[in-house]
Amino acid sequence: MITAAGNPKIKNLMNLMKKSKARKEQGLFVAEGLKMFLEAEEDRLVEVYVSNTFFASREKGGEIRKRLSACNTEILSDALFAKVSDTQTPQGILCVIRQYHYTREELLKGRNPLLLLIEDIQDPGNLGTMLRSAEGAGVDGVIMSKGTVDIYNPKTIRSTMGSVYRVPFLYTEEMGEMVDWLKEKGVAVYAAHLQGERAYDEENFRGSTAFLIGNEARGLREETAGAATRLMKIPMKGKVESLNAGVAASILLYEAARQRRTKIL
Amino acid sequence: MITAAGNPKIKNLMNLMKKSKARKEQGLFVAEGLKMFLEAEEDRLVEVYVSNTFFASREKGGEIRKRLSACNTEILSDALFAKVSDTQTPQGILCVIRQYHYTREELLKGRNPLLLLIEDIQDPGNLGTMLRSAEGAGVDGVIMSKGTVDIYNPKTIRSTMGSVYRVPFLYTEEMGEMVDWLKEKGVAVYAAHLQGERAYDEENFRGSTAFLIGNEARGLREETAGAATRLMKIPMKGKVESLNAGVAASILLYEAARQRRTKIL
Repeated sequence: MITAAGNPKIKNLMNLMKKSKARKEQGLFVAEGLKMFLEAEEDRLVEVYVSNTFFASREKGGEIRKRLSACNTEILSDALFAKVSDTQTPQGILCVIRQYHYTREELLKGRNPLLLLIEDIQDPGNLGTMLRSAEGAGVDGVIMSKGTVDIYNPKTIRSTMGSVYRVPFLYTEEMGEMVDWLKEKGVAVYAAHLQGERAYDEENFRGSTAFLIGNEARGLREETAGAATRLMKIPMKGKVESLNAGVAASILLYEAARQRRTKIL
Repeated sequence: MITAAGNPKIKNLMNLMKKSKARKEQGLFVAEGLKMFLEAEEDRLVEVYVSNTFFASREKGGEIRKRLSACNTEILSDALFAKVSDTQTPQGILCVIRQYHYTREELLKGRNPLLLLIEDIQDPGNLGTMLRSAEGAGVDGVIMSKGTVDIYNPKTIRSTMGSVYRVPFLYTEEMGEMVDWLKEKGVAVYAAHLQGERAYDEENFRGSTAFLIGNEARGLREETAGAATRLMKIPMKGKVESLNAGVAASILLYEAARQRRTKIL
């Protein structure tokens, strides 16, 4: 059992949780909680860290114990686990997982793909929520600008509720160029924008579709919005100027999902 | 200029920010930031606290200075303001506002009202996001169970982006009874629920409509779901079990708004 925060493995674990650079260099990330452990692909699980209480409380032969025994597992004292954990009420399990590497071509594999393009979103929870909605709506891939918060941030990972394991994603250096490339490939790129003329639900999202969502405070960069196939608005009553970015993305994705479920009239 | 955290006004201000009980007893709440100050109704503004830098930087005659001069304003040293503030990068302005008191009858004033019923939501940001989406979708009122987080929590207030000033809301002791009362008044109460048979977009929300949204982890209480007119599901692809509660509420509200904008076919 590891009890000291100075243990080299623990030091590295904390580095992976706190530093995007360490994650990038090692090609790893940390996912916390039982659901995240159970849903992780086994061949990506590099290490598992459990608290003493978590380890002791599991019945032998259960699914968790079985899975744990196949992993490279370290037991931490409860006090040390609480120190390492990113949550207020730790579940007692953390895993180190190999990062994903998708190509843009992989995101376009399906018929009439549905994509979410995210520019400079800063809030880790917002990004995670978008991944979760994206999976629910049947998105084929998520593309993020390099100015977007690190998707491997523990708070993002947690708020994806496991969708980070299943939705293909990548970061792009130049969102404008990516939009141009998508258009060449026949994808209609719609930007939610205050200057959009038509409401989002007046567009047809049954073909290859991508939605552009901008920064929480500033919205989309002008050049990115300019590269879009079309600007459209999300109608707002009262004095509301914009919706929460995760909400806006989810409303668009679910409108696309709705249209795709519905017969064309 | 106030510099000491021990100042009785500052002590009370911090109490109002931190304690739901203090807010309730005094019938007040605190809203932080320039937007929240400018959008507050003047006759509800009890006190305004600004940082020294904020106060010094405002040009005379501007809208902000004009509004400030009409208020009961206290200037705080920058250090003290930063200590009082609930945000990481304070804008230098906080206001104390009188709480709202709506009756359930007021929420049903409009023709074909659209309501949001919230049960036991715990995350202040989630609740604020729902208020923001509710205003955007044209909601007539929000009803919260007594187990829901305090709407006057500073983080909730901030994430409403001002909608808390404009969307009528109230807390109910018994959500089940409230649902029954709404049904008596001709409101169809729809619950987003895993056991719903039809998808949400197969229902007609053009008449008087209320949506029930449950706790982030547990969903709706069984008795509350049982009181609903109908359970319906939000279709989910992949392995997604549920959406973020704020997202789910927003998708339903925007589907109602979409139907209400669209001609009946």
